[in-house]
Amino acid sequence: MDVAVIGLGLIGGSVLRALASTGHRVLGYDADPATRATARTAAARAPASGRWQVAGTVRDAVPRAELVVIAVPLPAVAGVLGDLVGAGYTGLVTDVTSVKGPVQALVDQHLYGGHTRIAGFVGGHPMAGRETSGFGAADPTLFAGCAWVLCLDPQVTALADWLELAALLITLKARVVPALAADHDRAVAAVSHVPHLLATALAAVAADDPLASTLAAGSFRDGTRVAATRPDLVAAMCGGNAAAVGPALDAVLDALHQARAAVDVDDPIGALRAWLGPGSAARAAWPPRAGTPVELPARADVLLRLGRVGGWVTGVAEDRRTVTAVRPVPPDPAGSPAAR
Amino acid sequence: MDVAVIGLGLIGGSVLRALASTGHRVLGYDADPATRATARTAAARAPASGRWQVAGTVRDAVPRAELVVIAVPLPAVAGVLGDLVGAGYTGLVTDVTSVKGPVQALVDQHLYGGHTRIAGFVGGHPMAGRETSGFGAADPTLFAGCAWVLCLDPQVTALADWLELAALLITLKARVVPALAADHDRAVAAVSHVPHLLATALAAVAADDPLASTLAAGSFRDGTRVAATRPDLVAAMCGGNAAAVGPALDAVLDALHQARAAVDVDDPIGALRAWLGPGSAARAAWPPRAGTPVELPARADVLLRLGRVGGWVTGVAEDRRTVTAVRPVPPDPAGSPAAR
Repeated sequence: MDVAVIGLGLIGGSVLRALASTGHRVLGYDADPATRATARTAAARAPASGRWQVAGTVRDAVPRAELVVIAVPLPAVAGVLGDLVGAGYTGLVTDVTSVKGPVQALVDQHLYGGHTRIAGFVGGHPMAGRETSGFGAADPTLFAGCAWVLCLDPQVTALADWLELAALLITLKARVVPALAADHDRAVAAVSHVPHLLATALAAVAADDPLASTLAAGSFRDGTRVAATRPDLVAAMCGGNAAAVGPALDAVLDALHQARAAVDVDDPIGALRAWLGPGSAARAAWPPRAGTPVELPARADVLLRLGRVGGWVTGVAEDRRTVTAVRPVPPDPAGSPAAR
Repeated sequence: MDVAVIGLGLIGGSVLRALASTGHRVLGYDADPATRATARTAAARAPASGRWQVAGTVRDAVPRAELVVIAVPLPAVAGVLGDLVGAGYTGLVTDVTSVKGPVQALVDQHLYGGHTRIAGFVGGHPMAGRETSGFGAADPTLFAGCAWVLCLDPQVTALADWLELAALLITLKARVVPALAADHDRAVAAVSHVPHLLATALAAVAADDPLASTLAAGSFRDGTRVAATRPDLVAAMCGGNAAAVGPALDAVLDALHQARAAVDVDDPIGALRAWLGPGSAARAAWPPRAGTPVELPARADVLLRLGRVGGWVTGVAEDRRTVTAVRPVPPDPAGSPAAR
């Protein structure tokens, strides 16, 4: 397949490398000339069977492409969509941005203007962040075993496009998770965006006391790890998903205010033990174990139901009429294999 | 040195193994017969040069001891202190409990009753937790490079006792941090106890949504890691330090409410970028780098000042009149080596 990857940071660079190493013809582009030069040098050093090329403009990157992967930060997405329209691109488009509702709104405006679709779009998000960034950190195996959301909002994405992209990502060993954009945005607010805010609050408060910084060990190290991420990236991610981050942060604040109240009662040890129970059990049961693979009809409603219960697609049939999928095994309170 | 270690969980077992392997004669005891049996079997398998013995009662463990290490959870400390008094023990006592004010209050009541000191006490806390627990997880190298607080409250601890214990712990490669019990309790509330509460709140909220559990990746994994710790241990730790955990949690809640307000403004990306800056910079500057070793007079006021600025003791002179110490190097905003 001919693929163009626009944006060659950690994720874009990893997509480019992963697709090149699985036999696709890949053209990359980055707005930063230095990044383009780095990517060209790396291409020359790559094994001949897994090389890519680097274009000097978006327009030069897309003429032969059947798929364009947009891998730029949210504020740059609109510009790239405009470039694609300007280049007369009519193939499939996906992205890897960490919020999906706002991207779909931009797509509606730029690609689907006047309600005539000039390109097919499938919003995507690989759950594969790292504190490191840039093409130098790109890794063709980054997506092995990682959840990769592909949005399947009926008014935005055609099922055939979704299945084609899912089949491609499964060759990169990703777990393809079908979801509505709004459900994705709510879920990542809880498990990715709010954790960044908690980590940063913790790091900021501890910094006021040098003794505390010296005593900080494992729980602080891990609890604050993502606070070291570049503030502009975290701000774009959380601020770009403000509508979902607000309620998710409220839920955590509610829980913490309950803990705060438990600290003040006559028996704080007993009150905290009761408060800690459910979260502790939930964490002990995470990550969910994969159940036995099942075959499902390749229908949007079936796929969305699969995603909603935490399942993912592991295969797409050649004829695109069925998919192979797994659902997570519900944790069993007794600790033995679940009977459900 | 003859040492008795009372309580053979992860920390007590590691202390026992570390002291045995550095040539001390160590007798261990645990209230649980199964743990005693495990420790006896492990002793038989240890190299002849690093063996320990296991006593059947506290009374049997202490007759020859010059030092008793209390390594039981806070609720069991009073009982052990009573046993020591009952056994007529008059040597040095330390502990490894994660709160120091409440332990010193128990010591005052049990060991220093009637203001006659029947044993010397130095409250201690090695910052070396793990999610694993029990003697089976004990590791003689657990304390290498770890901060180990030794309290130096003048009304509780004699300087000579403090220096003797510091010298011993330095042979286990610990960084010995002098502190008042109240300062310790405030610092660990911020960097250890509150992180456990945040991790648990995060895990509990995400558990409500199966899609979120499936999408959860690195930031969730690390941000919730310690939530899997046994709730009774976390409750004892946080509830036992309630007086310090309350204000530390309030500080984090204040910071998070500021973030919540930033999410709701017209430009959440800009507002969050400003909010994220200080915490992100603080985390990037952590852990503090060690400065050049200096020689300091072995005086309580000097040692406490060292601890307050985040420094630690790396050596105690034979004559106990000076110590070698390092202070952390303040982070330089420009990124070059600090001139301060």
